Amino acid sequence: MEQTVAAPIVFETHPSQYRHWKLTFDGPVATLGMDVREDAGLRDDYRLKLNSYDLGVDIELADGIQRIRFEHPDVRVVVLTSLKERIFCAGANIFMLGGSSHGFKVNFCKFTNETRLAMEDASAHSGLKFVAAINGICAGGGYELALACDEILLVDDGNSAVSLPEAPLLGVLPGTGGLTRVVDKRKVRRDLADVFSTVAEGVKGKRAVEWRLVDAVHPTSRFRDEVQRRARELAAGSDRPEGARGIELRPLNPVISDNRIDYGVVDVMIDRPRRLAELTIRAPEAPQPSTPEGILQIGDQYWPLRAFRALDDAILRLRFNEPEIGTVVVRAVGDPVNVLACDEVLAEHRDHWLVREIVRFIARTLKRIDLTSRSFFALIEPGSAFAGTLFELALSCDRAYMLDDPDRPNTIALSTMNQGACRMSNGLTRLELRFLGEPARVEAAFAHEGPFDAQEALDAGLVTFAPDDLDWDDEVRLAIEARAALSPDALTGLEANLRFAGPETLETKVFGRLTAWQNWIFQRPNAVGERGALKTYGREGRPEFDWKRC
Amino acid sequence: MEQTVAAPIVFETHPSQYRHWKLTFDGPVATLGMDVREDAGLRDDYRLKLNSYDLGVDIELADGIQRIRFEHPDVRVVVLTSLKERIFCAGANIFMLGGSSHGFKVNFCKFTNETRLAMEDASAHSGLKFVAAINGICAGGGYELALACDEILLVDDGNSAVSLPEAPLLGVLPGTGGLTRVVDKRKVRRDLADVFSTVAEGVKGKRAVEWRLVDAVHPTSRFRDEVQRRARELAAGSDRPEGARGIELRPLNPVISDNRIDYGVVDVMIDRPRRLAELTIRAPEAPQPSTPEGILQIGDQYWPLRAFRALDDAILRLRFNEPEIGTVVVRAVGDPVNVLACDEVLAEHRDHWLVREIVRFIARTLKRIDLTSRSFFALIEPGSAFAGTLFELALSCDRAYMLDDPDRPNTIALSTMNQGACRMSNGLTRLELRFLGEPARVEAAFAHEGPFDAQEALDAGLVTFAPDDLDWDDEVRLAIEARAALSPDALTGLEANLRFAGPETLETKVFGRLTAWQNWIFQRPNAVGERGALKTYGREGRPEFDWKRC
Repeated sequence: MEQTVAAPIVFETHPSQYRHWKLTFDGPVATLGMDVREDAGLRDDYRLKLNSYDLGVDIELADGIQRIRFEHPDVRVVVLTSLKERIFCAGANIFMLGGSSHGFKVNFCKFTNETRLAMEDASAHSGLKFVAAINGICAGGGYELALACDEILLVDDGNSAVSLPEAPLLGVLPGTGGLTRVVDKRKVRRDLADVFSTVAEGVKGKRAVEWRLVDAVHPTSRFRDEVQRRARELAAGSDRPEGARGIELRPLNPVISDNRIDYGVVDVMIDRPRRLAELTIRAPEAPQPSTPEGILQIGDQYWPLRAFRALDDAILRLRFNEPEIGTVVVRAVGDPVNVLACDEVLAEHRDHWLVREIVRFIARTLKRIDLTSRSFFALIEPGSAFAGTLFELALSCDRAYMLDDPDRPNTIALSTMNQGACRMSNGLTRLELRFLGEPARVEAAFAHEGPFDAQEALDAGLVTFAPDDLDWDDEVRLAIEARAALSPDALTGLEANLRFAGPETLETKVFGRLTAWQNWIFQRPNAVGERGALKTYGREGRPEFDWKRC
Repeated sequence: MEQTVAAPIVFETHPSQYRHWKLTFDGPVATLGMDVREDAGLRDDYRLKLNSYDLGVDIELADGIQRIRFEHPDVRVVVLTSLKERIFCAGANIFMLGGSSHGFKVNFCKFTNETRLAMEDASAHSGLKFVAAINGICAGGGYELALACDEILLVDDGNSAVSLPEAPLLGVLPGTGGLTRVVDKRKVRRDLADVFSTVAEGVKGKRAVEWRLVDAVHPTSRFRDEVQRRARELAAGSDRPEGARGIELRPLNPVISDNRIDYGVVDVMIDRPRRLAELTIRAPEAPQPSTPEGILQIGDQYWPLRAFRALDDAILRLRFNEPEIGTVVVRAVGDPVNVLACDEVLAEHRDHWLVREIVRFIARTLKRIDLTSRSFFALIEPGSAFAGTLFELALSCDRAYMLDDPDRPNTIALSTMNQGACRMSNGLTRLELRFLGEPARVEAAFAHEGPFDAQEALDAGLVTFAPDDLDWDDEVRLAIEARAALSPDALTGLEANLRFAGPETLETKVFGRLTAWQNWIFQRPNAVGERGALKTYGREGRPEFDWKRC
């Protein structure tokens, strides 16, 4: 029977509240030790045996990595290891998956994928390297977690292996990036990857190195030392600041009622009868600091960080807790000048460690929106603050409507934050994507002096429609109503295709190719039917398959 | 109720037998006129109204394009148009889709996608350009067919529009490349594409040009002349030979029994209890011509064309008529020297129009295998002919086993046909893909003198395993048995991911991203449930949706 999660899922946590991980520090090396509490799953219809994980475990992991980035700038390497004997991680909990609704499975995988991509983002952009110290059996999602690290070290104890047993044991895919990272990131030969991914017992020892599945194996007696040695070597190559003090990420404390989540800087109104959320983000009202020192001083209250932390949390809550809300109307209100002032500071000090982290956080939040299976319509009305970073939010939307009323001035503006700081998963800026067919229009948009009024924005191709005040109400209302009437599945597929024109990267392949196939399999009776492999796992009897290939 | 096709589907046809298309010629311009016979569908539970199509219609289209390439080398431009009044094409027949099994829908879309990609292949490699002359309503698959053309001309009669009504009307995607080609090929802006793909009525006239959906619109009075004018212009830029005589593609005449399809040069044995096909391709026995003139003389009996036409037909029959056959064991037998001799001729005369067509045909057939949702294992045994073009077939397989028995010589060999003539959909050669992580090994393989014995092949990374004669039987048998025991759906997803490492192209995006999502939607109750949009279309009442977004 499918269980649903009754209580809303909360995405904020703190190391002091972790139930599954221990975060420790030793100079430039932090260790995230996995020690999953069997009885502390998000639901009570499964037990988290053998360091298997559910969403709650991954929320803590995501929090830990985030805090290392912001709160511990002196950390240069994160070692991921197990605090249990003989088991590193058994992957996502099968009974949790078996008892989850399709939508929950899809969103669970999306979140865990984003957590792993955040590790790779930290490695690529923040000088924070990750070492998987696999000190025991490492299966499925456990190996996928290792694959997200820069280096994978495996203990050579005659028993510990890495494996992707999803296909042979469960009839599903290693869908948290596993297949993609094996061949695309680690560049395991396709035929060896085929063998590896179809044998439940996996590969260990020297063969694991030869097949490129791990970077090195070390005997038990030397394993701990070798991990530390390699961690120190990687730390030496990092540009993370020495002796810098971090900022604390304090609780967001949204005010939550039945139909509203209010963070102050971000406000989400839920209109269930219309299956609509109205999300409003507010530009800063007070002047913001103009130096890294000033930003450090106010820390998580610095507007760009405060606003995007709230936005990120709101998006996650919508995804998991409001599945029937199909359309999100996005507004930005306040003085766009204050947004552009922040953007200037972010650009000027882009090499400062904290500014770098803030910008990367904004970029990841915008990517989270690109990947959110809801329709986003930006409404640009008089008093709107869609400038620079906030205009990037409008560019993330499926459409943008801008009111064209000469009596009520209404403008948008670009900044350097639209020029490459917030690239999408496919490596393009949102303006490059927008003008794939007319690249000169990107330059033309930046050559424009000052803000764009509605007609200029329309001519420049920056908004979809610019109705006048006579048409505005009807046109916007009809568009929202029409959207709400469409098949939610068709929209999910439509948006996943139209949002990602142009090149594909490892990252987009994980969400496009791999996830789309996994979601397909997650619907198939061979996996989720009463005799499907995912349902029969751990029970008596073998799965029964319909042998037809599609 | 889902209907299955009782009689095996046959993929060979001939213009003299077409029921749905008229192929006519006027100098360098051929016209494929669509005039679908309502009562001539492949099944009798639907009528092909309004130039809607089913697999039978597409088999004729594929045949027509193939024959233009081989039989009419003087043709430089193909005009695709409708012979009916006011309707160009209404797309894939909805009632056919509604009544088809999931597997049939998936394979139907795969085939139609391959037909459209064959048009783009002809445009890119054979100097054959395509003009869609849209002389009436053009919806869904009709517009997707137009999108595969080099130019799209739309009549401006106040009524004729292009549209992708799949999402709004049917709750599915325009899955025959539509969404991908709109944003990736024609580079329609994503927000405009979003609007276009969600309004059932589509876009017509000047707006269709402004949004880049079509290349030009012309009033009814001038439409026919403008199409001809543009066709002649495109013809002038083609390098197709003037006054050349084509070769006839005659029937393959396979001998078919219950468990065997025997083309002579290719032989497929079906072992249903083991869900296994054993496919054997035979190297040429007699010497093959060494000049284009000689090839022209024997035409479709020239070994490379004969062998790959048979192989292509065999793969299509397996896909549609033998859905439970999950594994294909591939053997090549005969003298590899004869294969390499052909390869030399193909390389030397690569610029000759017919050689070019033959090589492109081989390349397309190999791509068809890459995209076939069955596991392929190459078995390289003494007497095998896996050299050059035939070794490319082994490289297409998920694994290759090569017997290492010093007493029975067994070799493989490379040729120029492994060096770029047969690139995969993702633009890589199969050796480049294989050695994504160690590109120097591609060069090393080509630097090797002469054929590789089993140990050399294993060391060079060209085969997966090289068991000796003691282990061979057991190891191969166990591998095949283990494969046959796995979930067919998990294997489909696994192979779709592991086979396509590296870059993605429009072509791979159509099959990876778009198709995977479409297949997901084709499983969802919102589309195919009793009250799903695909089932309720044309009946009374509206679809009922589960509004949860995934």
